[in-house]
Amino acid sequence: MNGADLLARTLLDEGVDTCFANPGTSEMHFVAALDRHPQMRCVLCLAEGVVTGAADGFARMVGRPAVTLLHLGPGLSNGGANLHNARRARSPVVNVVGDHASYHLALDAPLTSDLDGIARPFSDRVLRLAPGDDVAAMTRDAVRSSRSGPGVTTMILPADVAWSEAASPVPATPSAPERRGCDAAGLAAAIELLGNGDGRTAIFLGGAALRADMLALAGDIAAATGAGLWCETACARIERGAGRIPIRRLPYPVDMARDAMADYAAIVLIGARAPVAFFAYPGKPGRILPAGCTTLDLAGPTEDVAGALNGLASALVRDRTPPAVPALPDAPGGTARLTSDAVARIVARRMPEQAVISDESITSAPGFFGYSQGAAPHDYMALTGGAIGQGIPVATGAAVAAPGRKVITLQADGSAMYSLQGLWTQAREALDVVTVIFSNRSYRILQHELRNVGATAAGPSANRMMSLADPALDWVALARGMGVEAARADTVAAFDDLFRSAMARPGPFLIEADTTAD
Amino acid sequence: MNGADLLARTLLDEGVDTCFANPGTSEMHFVAALDRHPQMRCVLCLAEGVVTGAADGFARMVGRPAVTLLHLGPGLSNGGANLHNARRARSPVVNVVGDHASYHLALDAPLTSDLDGIARPFSDRVLRLAPGDDVAAMTRDAVRSSRSGPGVTTMILPADVAWSEAASPVPATPSAPERRGCDAAGLAAAIELLGNGDGRTAIFLGGAALRADMLALAGDIAAATGAGLWCETACARIERGAGRIPIRRLPYPVDMARDAMADYAAIVLIGARAPVAFFAYPGKPGRILPAGCTTLDLAGPTEDVAGALNGLASALVRDRTPPAVPALPDAPGGTARLTSDAVARIVARRMPEQAVISDESITSAPGFFGYSQGAAPHDYMALTGGAIGQGIPVATGAAVAAPGRKVITLQADGSAMYSLQGLWTQAREALDVVTVIFSNRSYRILQHELRNVGATAAGPSANRMMSLADPALDWVALARGMGVEAARADTVAAFDDLFRSAMARPGPFLIEADTTAD
Repeated sequence: MNGADLLARTLLDEGVDTCFANPGTSEMHFVAALDRHPQMRCVLCLAEGVVTGAADGFARMVGRPAVTLLHLGPGLSNGGANLHNARRARSPVVNVVGDHASYHLALDAPLTSDLDGIARPFSDRVLRLAPGDDVAAMTRDAVRSSRSGPGVTTMILPADVAWSEAASPVPATPSAPERRGCDAAGLAAAIELLGNGDGRTAIFLGGAALRADMLALAGDIAAATGAGLWCETACARIERGAGRIPIRRLPYPVDMARDAMADYAAIVLIGARAPVAFFAYPGKPGRILPAGCTTLDLAGPTEDVAGALNGLASALVRDRTPPAVPALPDAPGGTARLTSDAVARIVARRMPEQAVISDESITSAPGFFGYSQGAAPHDYMALTGGAIGQGIPVATGAAVAAPGRKVITLQADGSAMYSLQGLWTQAREALDVVTVIFSNRSYRILQHELRNVGATAAGPSANRMMSLADPALDWVALARGMGVEAARADTVAAFDDLFRSAMARPGPFLIEADTTAD
Repeated sequence: MNGADLLARTLLDEGVDTCFANPGTSEMHFVAALDRHPQMRCVLCLAEGVVTGAADGFARMVGRPAVTLLHLGPGLSNGGANLHNARRARSPVVNVVGDHASYHLALDAPLTSDLDGIARPFSDRVLRLAPGDDVAAMTRDAVRSSRSGPGVTTMILPADVAWSEAASPVPATPSAPERRGCDAAGLAAAIELLGNGDGRTAIFLGGAALRADMLALAGDIAAATGAGLWCETACARIERGAGRIPIRRLPYPVDMARDAMADYAAIVLIGARAPVAFFAYPGKPGRILPAGCTTLDLAGPTEDVAGALNGLASALVRDRTPPAVPALPDAPGGTARLTSDAVARIVARRMPEQAVISDESITSAPGFFGYSQGAAPHDYMALTGGAIGQGIPVATGAAVAAPGRKVITLQADGSAMYSLQGLWTQAREALDVVTVIFSNRSYRILQHELRNVGATAAGPSANRMMSLADPALDWVALARGMGVEAARADTVAAFDDLFRSAMARPGPFLIEADTTAD
């Protein structure tokens, strides 16, 4: 058995059964090995940003890694932005990146680059296989450390390791879960902070604390203590909607975020890090929490979130009351020009149970999170690392991970252009994804940010760098070009009709929502 | 004057007048500064691979750098593949990459990454500006080292450096050209090798030695001595066509390359490095030159190529004879199904004088280089670093650099998908580029390479990872979606008609050449 076959077999043994791939010459033996292991579902993507974003979306849904197949340094680099997002989502991902045969590197062939150097900034861990290495043991190690993570593990696979005979695999030992229990002193301190009843403590949640069962505990604790309940702006996945605990999401704009936190004297972190501003602005602070606010890190993103919430609930909660179901937003209708707010309202009202939302709407749907609190139970995934071009790929991976659920991508037009190639994979795999493009024909966020940073009013050159209007992108044509059916709506009624029919039919569909009237 | 203004002004002072941009929040002050310097032509690109590839194409045409404007680590990473190609083309490029304000980095905000680490593998030089630095001096230094380099220089611009008051610029001192003269001992050795008349020496050219005037010298030397005349497979730009010296290009397939070099006892390198195989294959050597072949490095890519060729010509050439003009290939015609070979022949016959060819046809047009030797004088640019997704961006930058010349992109369909966003920039800037998509609906090269590496015959999973047929990409729709007029041809006559009319009209156009009949 060659190294490539052993790698494929060990991945499967460790529960990695999905491969998002964009292969090249140096990965041909691994491709051949995958061909001999039909239990591995191989999903071709036509650009690497789709590969890595799909692996992130897959991991967010199922909590275990997919494997990516990438080609040399440039291929890995193309996938770097969505690996950045995956790291910020704390998603487990195992990258297999082919390299030249180990003895070929010294020749500095045209496609040679510093692959290890390219991998490091985007990986929590980088392993390079070398001839003679124990491929099975290293692969097991890579998958397990990715799962116990955080989580992006890059394995560099030289072509000669792939094609050379490898030692027979040693039977795998089961991996021991490594989460440490919740720290008793921290728990006691948190109980004291929350139990004082002054309402000036916030519980700040992220990661696994945003699943419905954990949120139910957190909701009870908040109800019993008067604590605020917040989650990260850049949350990887929240289970929410009618019957689940409403949680407020920290706003992105720094002033709004600081206002939201201004009255808290203490913050208890469970599965999250303390919030900071996305960007610095002249004369504004980068910290979100008020001066003197106590920060108690009860359970980090990879620690015992369940233990923390159960411990707090045991000490603080007497009665459990089911959460109130917030009202759905008014449904706009009629022939009025479409706006992004109308899109957000309609999606919140119309989305089916167990929908999965991939939200990269950026400036276009700030109301959606609120509107959808009372919507049918659903999962919500945010842009985690701020590297745009995540929405379509993450939706693609989520749809692979969660067949039978409708995936809805709320997608800003500017951001969509970085990874529109994902639409093709949605068509090829007949994935049940509806993409809503907010077509406002601008980098709207930059128009805001130019003002935020105090830069002077934009003239023709700056305006031209923030406008997508000349020429206008035709998203219906772009989608059809990649095999995805599509239609355009410029009135509220037309969007409502299209969205309803898209919800009722399976398979990929794209709606270009003309929101230039915003 | 703030740092951003001083940066913009110094770039202009140093002759950098074109900016390919994909900005984000941290670059807003630089965008505002560019707005105040209308002499700088700002070209928006909707994905960073287009930005960096366009800067490469621009530099190949005019020999001086454009500046790129990129956003943080993920933005730079997205542009990494085409920076890799730019380095292999030895193109001067100055990247300006915005970073968070220097004091904001410690907060590890969501978009923070190891930007210096991301920059290093794709840059010949990385400079990080810090508060208080002399922005003008560092910018001058960056531009000059990029020009004298090789050539990709990355400047990291923290937001607070951009927005803070900067010292007034010191008037620039003119930069001194730094090329060392040709080494006399090397020249004498080369004269001896070439002068022995045994015909077993090859002159191997790259970089600046591939301009028409240098090729004329090389042709005379070859004619006088019986030496072989070859150039790199991955050549950045050759001036060629009728009336210019025909030069053979080393074939890409390793066996063909080794056969081409098999009879040489010595090779004289001028502007080029000694050739090596792109990839290693089981049981095949990675070196192209035969054992015992003497390699004489007369002038490296950044050294005195003109001195070397003039020195050799003075010693070796008595009579100068104009080169024979090779015949144009037969023009196929009629209603036969289109093939990629027919496309190559028609383009060679029909392209106008001073056309610029961006060739990323990969497997689709191996005959084109030969067919076009007798074509109207033109420039030819190859894929230099093997990182696919170069063709459309390099053509875009070349068209910006060379108004009045027709740019023709010979573009494989699989490779086109990595940077199709460049079509939008061609539409916005009304660039005179005709893109020919070889639509064979497969990663054809991988089908070859799977056999080359000795991997076993492909089954369904491997075939599915090398096929683009399900669903078929509709390139006419994709182009129109980005504002570029387009049409499809599936017969020889239809392609001939479309190509002729595309040559006769200005502005961008795309032809989907259905070459599935190949």
